[in-house]
Amino acid sequence: MQTLSELFENTLKDIYFAENAISEALPKASRAVKSADLKKALDHHLEETKGQIETLKKVFKTINVKPMGEKCDATEGLLKETDGVIGESKGVALDAGVLAACQAVEHYEIARYGSLREWAKVLGNEEAHVLLSEILDQEKAANNVLTNLAVSKINH
Amino acid sequence: MQTLSELFENTLKDIYFAENAISEALPKASRAVKSADLKKALDHHLEETKGQIETLKKVFKTINVKPMGEKCDATEGLLKETDGVIGESKGVALDAGVLAACQAVEHYEIARYGSLREWAKVLGNEEAHVLLSEILDQEKAANNVLTNLAVSKINH
Repeated sequence: MQTLSELFENTLKDIYFAENAISEALPKASRAVKSADLKKALDHHLEETKGQIETLKKVFKTINVKPMGEKCDATEGLLKETDGVIGESKGVALDAGVLAACQAVEHYEIARYGSLREWAKVLGNEEAHVLLSEILDQEKAANNVLTNLAVSKINH
Repeated sequence: MQTLSELFENTLKDIYFAENAISEALPKASRAVKSADLKKALDHHLEETKGQIETLKKVFKTINVKPMGEKCDATEGLLKETDGVIGESKGVALDAGVLAACQAVEHYEIARYGSLREWAKVLGNEEAHVLLSEILDQEKAANNVLTNLAVSKINH
């Protein structure tokens, strides 16, 4: 990669891989946790994630590239960590641990969408900038829902 | 893990592993990038990271546990991603890509310290709560420095 547009395309493929992997991982996390509120939040975020995958397809269209994922080591590591918590925990530690692992995934996405939408702006791709900003706002809101849930209910 | 205190100890070992791995990875990232401002920011964050490792030792002390790291899949994935960008990029893509990868690492840490300090509070460990909040504030500030650098200089 040499140009910002190559970096943009490459990172877009990373996050497309990430969203697809997350949409496969969320049902397992939702099944594992005990709190009905946390299950509901994870199920809701699964629906959002499916919508985000569709939005990312539109972003690919703005650069005339076929939507495709590229293996993303960071996402694989984050989801392996989530899987580890599910496998090793019970009781309070299970719900609080899964919730925290999901927040780590959210934060990864917040970082990636923050960079991607800035790069879209610099590249003069206004449509991608708007679409990616929409997803970024959703991820931030999803993270806030988890924070509130952790503080008010799950950590106790 | 069953209790919040076991989850706290386990996650503390994860982030201790993470900070040590990050302090080993930062010099390579700093050597790789071209921008003097970005080098300066990464070098400054290396010094901060070394201080955070010392602060984490104090947190271990509050729970009477010997400081030790536990292999953290998420950190390994994130740093592998950073390494990939360094190996595959040149020019604008190199600096912008490394900066963005470092922000992904920052965001991971922000998520982890956010959870850890809340757990410390619930566990009635006020000293750990304060120490972890200090590190959290530093990580947020470091991420803001990188965002400003990206938007004002590196992405162009």
